[in-house]
Amino acid sequence: MSKMTIKPELPGGFRDYLPQDMIPRQKMLDTIRSVFERFGFDPLQTPTIERLDVLTGNNEFFNMHLFRTGVVRGLNEPHGSQFNETAVRFDLTVPLSRVIAANSNLPKPFKRYQVGTVCRGEKPQAGRFREFTQFDADIVGSSSILADTEIILIMCESMKALGFENSTTRFNSRKILNGLAQLVGFDSPDERTKEVFRILDKLEKIGWNEVKEKLQRQPKNSSETDAPNLNNASVDMVKEFLNIKGTSNETLAQLRELFKSSPLGSDGVDELSEIVENLMTMDIPEGRWKLDLSIARGLDYYTGPVFETVLNDAPEIGSVFGGGRYDGLVSRFQEDANIPATGASLGVDRLFAAMKKLDKVHDQKTTVEVLVANFEPKAQEESIKLAATLRRVGINTELYYGSDTSLTGQLRHAVKKEVPFLAFIG
Amino acid sequence: MSKMTIKPELPGGFRDYLPQDMIPRQKMLDTIRSVFERFGFDPLQTPTIERLDVLTGNNEFFNMHLFRTGVVRGLNEPHGSQFNETAVRFDLTVPLSRVIAANSNLPKPFKRYQVGTVCRGEKPQAGRFREFTQFDADIVGSSSILADTEIILIMCESMKALGFENSTTRFNSRKILNGLAQLVGFDSPDERTKEVFRILDKLEKIGWNEVKEKLQRQPKNSSETDAPNLNNASVDMVKEFLNIKGTSNETLAQLRELFKSSPLGSDGVDELSEIVENLMTMDIPEGRWKLDLSIARGLDYYTGPVFETVLNDAPEIGSVFGGGRYDGLVSRFQEDANIPATGASLGVDRLFAAMKKLDKVHDQKTTVEVLVANFEPKAQEESIKLAATLRRVGINTELYYGSDTSLTGQLRHAVKKEVPFLAFIG
Repeated sequence: MSKMTIKPELPGGFRDYLPQDMIPRQKMLDTIRSVFERFGFDPLQTPTIERLDVLTGNNEFFNMHLFRTGVVRGLNEPHGSQFNETAVRFDLTVPLSRVIAANSNLPKPFKRYQVGTVCRGEKPQAGRFREFTQFDADIVGSSSILADTEIILIMCESMKALGFENSTTRFNSRKILNGLAQLVGFDSPDERTKEVFRILDKLEKIGWNEVKEKLQRQPKNSSETDAPNLNNASVDMVKEFLNIKGTSNETLAQLRELFKSSPLGSDGVDELSEIVENLMTMDIPEGRWKLDLSIARGLDYYTGPVFETVLNDAPEIGSVFGGGRYDGLVSRFQEDANIPATGASLGVDRLFAAMKKLDKVHDQKTTVEVLVANFEPKAQEESIKLAATLRRVGINTELYYGSDTSLTGQLRHAVKKEVPFLAFIG
Repeated sequence: MSKMTIKPELPGGFRDYLPQDMIPRQKMLDTIRSVFERFGFDPLQTPTIERLDVLTGNNEFFNMHLFRTGVVRGLNEPHGSQFNETAVRFDLTVPLSRVIAANSNLPKPFKRYQVGTVCRGEKPQAGRFREFTQFDADIVGSSSILADTEIILIMCESMKALGFENSTTRFNSRKILNGLAQLVGFDSPDERTKEVFRILDKLEKIGWNEVKEKLQRQPKNSSETDAPNLNNASVDMVKEFLNIKGTSNETLAQLRELFKSSPLGSDGVDELSEIVENLMTMDIPEGRWKLDLSIARGLDYYTGPVFETVLNDAPEIGSVFGGGRYDGLVSRFQEDANIPATGASLGVDRLFAAMKKLDKVHDQKTTVEVLVANFEPKAQEESIKLAATLRRVGINTELYYGSDTSLTGQLRHAVKKEVPFLAFIG
């Protein structure tokens, strides 16, 4: 048997969670789970590995870096073509859509939560990983705005339950953005619309003057399809849109005025009004939520309201919880099916990093509450019985059986592990 | 964009857990976790994907079917050599050994539990899957038999906590089997020893006469290294060993006599006596545990006590929880290191299948306790407030916002989901 010493290393972009991180992390997951269950969501589990066609929709433009998988026996078996069939999931939404398409008898609305790891093969960087944990909640089979509102609600409530009092869940509707495209005379979605949203996304960074310039850019030749080429009236309309501010009711009034000639935009305003009304009925204080016209959350996926949660004490972390309505859920499996869905995904690792940064993690190296020392062979039997008694009444107990036979050494073990109590007989 | 309708299917050997299975499954996992924590184990999480050299030890005879992984962009990027570096983990023990080797400062004994999925690429068969969940508990850095006893203890206690009163955790020591090899004049481990154990494993199936014949088989030529070729005295010794029975103390007395000329075997008898003594001190009734000389649990891995739990009401399922002492834990990473370890792994899916078979799963389709109906637009505001109130006092509540606007339809939804209570205003 050939044997070389091997380095105990992980592949780049992967990491362990040792007990001192896992203990608070698990508490965090338990808290989220109990919030989601309180709001009527049930658990689902799907496999780590899925079929490639399910994951990519056989879309030839699918552009993500996936961890393909294939079975190889031992170290030296030749291989190759088996890697064209399966890959590690990259999110929990595609697996949900597969479950919905395959189980038409599930009672609707179907409200599920799922926690699990997903993998994306982007180049690993400092603080960015290739495997991460997502905690998703989705509602399938309801086109009611009340469903979207409840997603915003659980986003607010999860943050509150985790101790992030100072967080805001912001929302917008993709219909507002599509309405804006309609106002300036574009079909939505086309290349120009996408380019306009890309430009607007840069507003904070580059300022209005540069935005304006980019919005007026003309195509150099006929093959350039994404030059916005807005006229002055359209630029003014965009500026008016960007200038909308104030309380939600003030914002809604200005939006209604702006979009009076755009059915799509007006639809969006109705959605947003209904969400605001529902949140007020639910007594969720404004400030924990905010109508925010700058939220877009990608371009191709969402069809209605979109949401994201930011921690106001750590805005640099970006959004920790995000989602929206995506009514094309199962279209990849059933072209004629129209199953509405809305939901959000919590980035567990990012949120945990934020909790540590904001000192909201109660440092705990062990779940052990009592260490029963065991340094006197004659007392070992009694020590075993003491540990049994403590455990019987529900106390997390470690009985010592390491290599250190002195009381001082065992006390040192308790101190190193930060076990709160030491018990001994002798 | 080319688009074809895709079948909502899983790869062979993988499966989903829908809410009706996930709810009791999650309860099961919570129960196990609380038992493990009560006995002083802390949580650890490692990634799904590991380096291939870590998983295989660069052993050219490594023979397992692994799900190799490699990053490919989109659907059409050429690929190949990137599949020689990483694979999905096939157990949770190798990752533990990597963590131990990489984190020498962890307080010892280090007691960790871990729950997670692992993948093995064996051909899928009815009832056998390629992905399954393991729940492991291990103690690293103690060579005390008390550590092994506590592993047996948590095996017994987990089964009890899960409601399997009629289960037995059986144990043996690999030193007993190696002592037997010593008695019949073999070095251990060599090819002949392994062959002898393979033959003994078949005793129940083929009976003593055929076993005897196989034990006496002579090599056909000098290159055949695994023919046992036992003489009559050795065969008698094996028969004497197989005939040992009775209470643990009777068994121990017979073993001590048989192994009086084998230091290895005598060591094994000492180990087993100490385990029996500890279990009696811990007051665990005999019957829930059993010294069983037929337990071997593979050949190359374990170095001392070995354990496995069977459900006496479903023996056909085989062992649901198994493990042993493996003192070579980190040898793949540090040739000179000698870190003792002992532990056991619970097969979650197999145990869950047994629970269903034995009717120990309380069927529950939802965690929702109350459905708040919502069929009267004028009462919607009050319904929203009622749901909020119920949730505030900790009741899992679903507010209805599906497509059925009649009370009867919403009642049907509650019945289909098996929600115990329906509340409505109107």
